[in-house]
Amino acid sequence: MLNKDTSVCISLAGRPSNLGTRFHNRLYGELGLDFVYKAFTTSDLEGAIRGVRALGIRGCSVSMPFKTAVVPLLDRLEASAADIDAVNTIVNDAGVLTGSNTDVEAVAALLAERDLDRASRVVVRGSGSMASAVSAAFARAGFGHVTLWARNAAAGAAIAERDGHRFTDADPDDADVLVNVTPLGMAGGEEGVLAFDPDLIRGARAVFDVVALPVETPLIRAARAAGLPVISGAEVHALQAALQFERYTGVRLSRDQVERAHAFARA
Amino acid sequence: MLNKDTSVCISLAGRPSNLGTRFHNRLYGELGLDFVYKAFTTSDLEGAIRGVRALGIRGCSVSMPFKTAVVPLLDRLEASAADIDAVNTIVNDAGVLTGSNTDVEAVAALLAERDLDRASRVVVRGSGSMASAVSAAFARAGFGHVTLWARNAAAGAAIAERDGHRFTDADPDDADVLVNVTPLGMAGGEEGVLAFDPDLIRGARAVFDVVALPVETPLIRAARAAGLPVISGAEVHALQAALQFERYTGVRLSRDQVERAHAFARA
Repeated sequence: MLNKDTSVCISLAGRPSNLGTRFHNRLYGELGLDFVYKAFTTSDLEGAIRGVRALGIRGCSVSMPFKTAVVPLLDRLEASAADIDAVNTIVNDAGVLTGSNTDVEAVAALLAERDLDRASRVVVRGSGSMASAVSAAFARAGFGHVTLWARNAAAGAAIAERDGHRFTDADPDDADVLVNVTPLGMAGGEEGVLAFDPDLIRGARAVFDVVALPVETPLIRAARAAGLPVISGAEVHALQAALQFERYTGVRLSRDQVERAHAFARA
Repeated sequence: MLNKDTSVCISLAGRPSNLGTRFHNRLYGELGLDFVYKAFTTSDLEGAIRGVRALGIRGCSVSMPFKTAVVPLLDRLEASAADIDAVNTIVNDAGVLTGSNTDVEAVAALLAERDLDRASRVVVRGSGSMASAVSAAFARAGFGHVTLWARNAAAGAAIAERDGHRFTDADPDDADVLVNVTPLGMAGGEEGVLAFDPDLIRGARAVFDVVALPVETPLIRAARAAGLPVISGAEVHALQAALQFERYTGVRLSRDQVERAHAFARA
């Protein structure tokens, strides 16, 4: 039961979901940690961060549209956040607020874990904030042949330039690794749409879809049908949440714990 | 289970206890209310109130040393708080923060409920913030013969003047209603000390002790032994918490619900 010494973690999002609240509280209960987690929205980001400091809130997850706006309100930035000028995780250590980006860290960790060839020709489709994180993660992971493909040339070219990648707004001819960071295939959005041309998929060696809902997007299904190794959005989201959990609590979760809590949170 | 829409209430105190957190959360669970309550302390009261606004926190209980300092940070004051320039309850209605004082309201309600004679000669012992609330409650309840008795003449005389009462720093000779608002008889403080002279108690018609722990102070025991009606600090504390609960949730508690939750919170 909650008490005066219970540590509090929160999230700030323009449109809060129940995912974080369910994921973290489920694990607190399972592990017997004296923590509680609650999602919030705000129309006063500066006031919310002032409240985080004044109330001694231990951790704060940050979602759209606050990821970049929050940067000047913090005391320190880790490289994962500084690289892309976007924070999704704040840790409060005795009043010192440090921002990091566990999306970047999670993608980089999955790339390292799957042991993809760093000489691969990678095409990253998208130019939004998550595409920015994925692009930075490929750069951090040492991939030297990355092309950002997006309709929004201004946004896409800026990300590509920042990370030393190429940019194109024309359909790519071929690639070794295909990465979707658009809403194509996402539930409630353009569900059912395949993010890459079937020929491109057949010619690839690995596919990575950042869309987390549904777990099996058209792209993931097509990649599996072609016998390709895949990284799914569900893996990215679960790992980034686990990295937040570890920063807030100091507890490193097992893959099994993460997957069960993530499944519970999505149910 | 907590979710994104759960309403949050908090407390701010220099030295938080577990009472409020246990009292409110117990009742939320019992009544199936989608609320959660958490005690906090702060070294930045203005930042904490800014956080209450920015995060849309529904209610905030305020304890020492913040009750007067919080006044200028709010949008509106009810009379119970304005009368004594001290707030113990903040309600956030869509961004409008209203301060009230449920200590004053609880004492006034208990005085009305017990139907004490308003012509009684009342002696209130004490000059701290709770004595200020009790003095104001006697004035609100229409008692015209109230004497504040305190060693601290500056503080006591100021409260008495504000409320139209008399002040004395000399031991009173007799009184109809004796009210202790000092730490005399309090657990961990001057436990075992009787707050009024036995002769004074024998000559009185009612006794009121604001000390809540222990429930049976020496004064309450002596009054019961003399066959006098009593109002105990436990009653004041339970009722003021119930009034806060109603303001935050809109739910009026039964006396039985209050007493069981209060007993649970103190256990």
